[in-house]
Amino acid sequence: MKILVLLIASAVVVCADEGMWTFDNPPTKLIQSKYGFTLTKQWLDHVRLASARLNDGGSGSFVSPHGLLLTNHHVAREQLQKSSNAQHDYIKDGFLARSQAEEIKAPDLEVNVLMSTEDVTARIEAATKSAQNPDQEFAARRKAMAEIEAESTKKTGLRSDIVTLYSGGEYWLYRYKKYTDIRIVFAPEAQAAFFGGDPDNFTYPRYDLDMALFRVYENDKPIDTPNYLKWNSKGAADNELVFVSGNPGSTQRLDTLAQLQNDRDNFLPNELKLLKSRIAVLETFSKTSEEHAREASSDIFGFQNSVKALTGEYEGLQNPRIMEKKRDEEQKFRAAVAAKPELLSKYGTAWDEIASAEKKSASRVKERFYHSTDSRLAGIAMQIVQYVVEVKKPDGQRLPGYHDSQLESLKFELLSPAPIYKDLEQARIAGALQLDVQEMDPNDKFLQTILAGRTPQQAATELVNGTHLDDPAVRKRLLEGGEAAVNASTDPMIVLAKKLDPMRRELIKWTEDNVQSVEQQAGERLGRARFAVYGKSTYPDATFTLRLSYGTVKGYPMNGTEAPPKTTFYGLFDRAAGFDYQPPFDLPSRIKEGRNKLDLSTALNFVATNDIIGGNSGSPVINKEGELVGLIFDGNIESLVGDFVYDIETNRAVAVHTAAMAEALRKLYGADRLLKELGM
Amino acid sequence: MKILVLLIASAVVVCADEGMWTFDNPPTKLIQSKYGFTLTKQWLDHVRLASARLNDGGSGSFVSPHGLLLTNHHVAREQLQKSSNAQHDYIKDGFLARSQAEEIKAPDLEVNVLMSTEDVTARIEAATKSAQNPDQEFAARRKAMAEIEAESTKKTGLRSDIVTLYSGGEYWLYRYKKYTDIRIVFAPEAQAAFFGGDPDNFTYPRYDLDMALFRVYENDKPIDTPNYLKWNSKGAADNELVFVSGNPGSTQRLDTLAQLQNDRDNFLPNELKLLKSRIAVLETFSKTSEEHAREASSDIFGFQNSVKALTGEYEGLQNPRIMEKKRDEEQKFRAAVAAKPELLSKYGTAWDEIASAEKKSASRVKERFYHSTDSRLAGIAMQIVQYVVEVKKPDGQRLPGYHDSQLESLKFELLSPAPIYKDLEQARIAGALQLDVQEMDPNDKFLQTILAGRTPQQAATELVNGTHLDDPAVRKRLLEGGEAAVNASTDPMIVLAKKLDPMRRELIKWTEDNVQSVEQQAGERLGRARFAVYGKSTYPDATFTLRLSYGTVKGYPMNGTEAPPKTTFYGLFDRAAGFDYQPPFDLPSRIKEGRNKLDLSTALNFVATNDIIGGNSGSPVINKEGELVGLIFDGNIESLVGDFVYDIETNRAVAVHTAAMAEALRKLYGADRLLKELGM
Repeated sequence: MKILVLLIASAVVVCADEGMWTFDNPPTKLIQSKYGFTLTKQWLDHVRLASARLNDGGSGSFVSPHGLLLTNHHVAREQLQKSSNAQHDYIKDGFLARSQAEEIKAPDLEVNVLMSTEDVTARIEAATKSAQNPDQEFAARRKAMAEIEAESTKKTGLRSDIVTLYSGGEYWLYRYKKYTDIRIVFAPEAQAAFFGGDPDNFTYPRYDLDMALFRVYENDKPIDTPNYLKWNSKGAADNELVFVSGNPGSTQRLDTLAQLQNDRDNFLPNELKLLKSRIAVLETFSKTSEEHAREASSDIFGFQNSVKALTGEYEGLQNPRIMEKKRDEEQKFRAAVAAKPELLSKYGTAWDEIASAEKKSASRVKERFYHSTDSRLAGIAMQIVQYVVEVKKPDGQRLPGYHDSQLESLKFELLSPAPIYKDLEQARIAGALQLDVQEMDPNDKFLQTILAGRTPQQAATELVNGTHLDDPAVRKRLLEGGEAAVNASTDPMIVLAKKLDPMRRELIKWTEDNVQSVEQQAGERLGRARFAVYGKSTYPDATFTLRLSYGTVKGYPMNGTEAPPKTTFYGLFDRAAGFDYQPPFDLPSRIKEGRNKLDLSTALNFVATNDIIGGNSGSPVINKEGELVGLIFDGNIESLVGDFVYDIETNRAVAVHTAAMAEALRKLYGADRLLKELGM
Repeated sequence: MKILVLLIASAVVVCADEGMWTFDNPPTKLIQSKYGFTLTKQWLDHVRLASARLNDGGSGSFVSPHGLLLTNHHVAREQLQKSSNAQHDYIKDGFLARSQAEEIKAPDLEVNVLMSTEDVTARIEAATKSAQNPDQEFAARRKAMAEIEAESTKKTGLRSDIVTLYSGGEYWLYRYKKYTDIRIVFAPEAQAAFFGGDPDNFTYPRYDLDMALFRVYENDKPIDTPNYLKWNSKGAADNELVFVSGNPGSTQRLDTLAQLQNDRDNFLPNELKLLKSRIAVLETFSKTSEEHAREASSDIFGFQNSVKALTGEYEGLQNPRIMEKKRDEEQKFRAAVAAKPELLSKYGTAWDEIASAEKKSASRVKERFYHSTDSRLAGIAMQIVQYVVEVKKPDGQRLPGYHDSQLESLKFELLSPAPIYKDLEQARIAGALQLDVQEMDPNDKFLQTILAGRTPQQAATELVNGTHLDDPAVRKRLLEGGEAAVNASTDPMIVLAKKLDPMRRELIKWTEDNVQSVEQQAGERLGRARFAVYGKSTYPDATFTLRLSYGTVKGYPMNGTEAPPKTTFYGLFDRAAGFDYQPPFDLPSRIKEGRNKLDLSTALNFVATNDIIGGNSGSPVINKEGELVGLIFDGNIESLVGDFVYDIETNRAVAVHTAAMAEALRKLYGADRLLKELGM
């Protein structure tokens, strides 16, 4: 029996270098024993306070004492896009502020720095104790969460979020210092940052200068960031221990087999179909003019990025070896629970409850994808319609997204001055409705409400031509005018949103009652069961919150040979010439003509075994001394199954080398002001 | 029924760009319709006469009117090794003859140029017609072949070989002009030719200057080669039609499923085990001194090359998708035969006969691998012992290898002045016997005869110390002294060979009677059945005879992205720097220090869809004008399953670009004499 238990335990002992660890439970012993390095509280605090979350969906780090924030070009891309116009294309041409005065305010970027964390599991558990069924428990949990968040916000003035870890095994309160005055300092040309385009995305060897610099302001002045990471242009040597501190978005490593199967059979195929349709619509739109191409470029980038990532996940779930491994893990976990009567009685039915909820979820999966207009304006309209109703309710009873602790960030986004292109909106709505019509029943009430007898194109034209929601001032008036103003509005987007709102709410309620409440309750039990069987020797699934991963710089076996630990500028020119400089392998003229200024042997990109995933983009790579040695910008193609499993043999994080960033800033961009600030 | 037949036929219609075509049956129509280019007799004759077979196991082409022969460094490697000594290491340091007088005679290289071919199927068929069983047929066929070869040699003075095509569906007489005075003109450093070593072998992107130049002499003068290929340094553009003319060694695309399964289950696992053991022995030997490392280097190279290639084949045969495809093809072929009574009665049992012969073959597979001493000296001894007996028999009754038409080439090899290193021989024999003992029964008679109570090391030491066969004069005396001299010899290698000879002969005879005769006869019938069902719309399996393949320069999908159509010198420096110049990614000082002389954007290697396989190494890549645009040196990792199936999506031939060869000859090697001769 002892042996069996040991075998079971070893089945989930994490692999070497695996894991996206919370800062409160870092793998200190593992790192000590494998690498002889001790993580101190001081080191962890320094790294945590130097790390930032960018709410466009990435990570970053402070690299000077004056709020200079390093992230990826592709994380900065949305703000660059929103700051560009027909005259200035900062995506295509890049941007460099030659003085502080030239730094451009990003329209709607929020940056968070994690100040403290607190385990509130006991308080949530106490609040849900008297619930008689999953529905009651769900409501009680939501209420308790909203209370804790509101109380913390009030007390500390910090953004306060409850984070669910270990599928509900633990609840934590995360408090962030929040910044919303973020300015654009530097971005290279998109073609320098994203050389190789969609084909090279998520692959390695790679040759990308995927960097951008923001500066964080408060009260119109750069903030002080004493805990910045010192720039080390030597970088990390082959096999050197390095850390990544960032905000991995989401993984499903603790999901049950039923959840993975539903993903594979229902969620991912529809998601991929939808994304590919979106791309086709945008590419058609792009061909109509150069300005249209500029307007759509970032959305195309984002959708293509998702398609490539999700295709990797989808193929992972179709790989029998991977599913076999997951099945095996689950069987062992279930057997361990079944072996102890007290565990069996508490947790034994959780898997089946989740499986049955997944089945229900699958029954309405199409509505989740094909009740969509893919419209920024329609989205804003729906948020305004819901906002004015929700804010009047007690906090604990509101729809997700409208809790007191969330309102400030929500309004920041809703009132963003970023341009909304009406021609682009029309094309997207028409394209999305076309897909909806193709996928849904002809009598679908939701679609009938939108179309009202019109073709998708007619509906799109009338909705977009008639609305004034592209003006932030109109949005502001509606928000401030409350329910009365909204009810009085004749804006066609608002009128439509009001008609659709009950249907949206019905689906949200149905999902809460039939899926979320069941899965949260069962997930929480599985989380506790996992602790009971395996202890807290592992890390929770990613939740777009701050995590630490560790590993070493290391090549890997690839396609019959070895991928090198690093690449150089030589390789950038090789790959460009190998394709005769044809897009996406063309070089910006600054690089092509600047070739002789560069030391071509400068390290450009490198790979490390660190366990990362989407959301980690822009994370710093840090050495033992707490210095910056690289900038995460991607995972290799072999890492895409990392959503479910991590394999040290081939899973690699891909980073820009500090040497290349310094070389480019100095010799190509003449960014002397920044180099000086970076201590070079 | 019509539809079924069409479906069947389409199942073996060759893919676009597939095929290693004989010059008598080129795919003229296919090329005309796909590429609008017409192969003329003149074009084919020009290319054929510019092409050469190098009997060390590769191909080459004439590139000047004065017998200058271009091939790969790795094809020239054996002769470079045999011409080197402790003072001059032409492998490591390369070689350039600054004048014709400095050109070094290769010790034992034979070069063949195909002068004519003749279909002799009818004559062979007539000779075997009256045979009552496979054994009789086998003997009659062997006799007829020997007669035809001897008659042709006598009449034309040309080397005359019968070639079995389409598993015996056709027999052809190939006549070659044979050259044996071949001199070494140029070779780069091995590390320039084989940069990336074993890891990069059989992969792409690649950065190798895998070239060498010989010159062919006759009567101590360079031969005239009016049909040489004109050097075109522009090379071929992306998507341009190119041809490869060379001698692919062997493929198994027409093998039956039973043959492939036996390969997979018996042949390949043992072959790989043996090769890995050989490499381990040689690597241990290499560590004992620098001179030992030099002596063993080419053998290690060869064995590693084989391991990588065979591993690719082995994995191919273990790939269910590939086996499923082969199974499907065979089922359709069998169904088509079964559908016509006259075909069924003639050919219907052939598959089962082959399957049963393969089963027999498998029963003695271990002897074929582990009755080996891996010794050049022991091999020579066995050949001498057999030679003196065989030459006295009528030609048609001799062991294979001892027919009149083969004796000249055999003696050329046996009397080669190439050095044989006794310390290396000892290590190899001891290592091989160690493996034999481990794999075979302790009472194995063959091994008992060799060991005679000694340990493998003792046996190796005594055999090697006692023999004088390393002296070519001793070998000559024995050959000329005939059976009497051999019987009188007390040389321990000769004495041992005489004891082992009856056992060797028994296995040869057993294999002829139980496997070869059955498979030849059944194979011949399958060949005819294939013609009856599909016509002669396809190409025969490779037989190390001259073939033409066609295709285009083209990148391919690789590891999530695109492999480029070509690489450049930039990439060479990138990959070297990416591994910190550590072997096998180090650069010869000539290249490292010559970097600034080079135009780094010069095309270095490129890929094309042409269907090639081992033996094609050194083949010219030729454009429509019949000019040289590249030099084949490898296939990519995806091409290793090409032994069984060709897949245009990813199967690529890898070539050195003419531009890189010219750039290196000019700027790194200062080979002005050669450049002038090459017309540059």
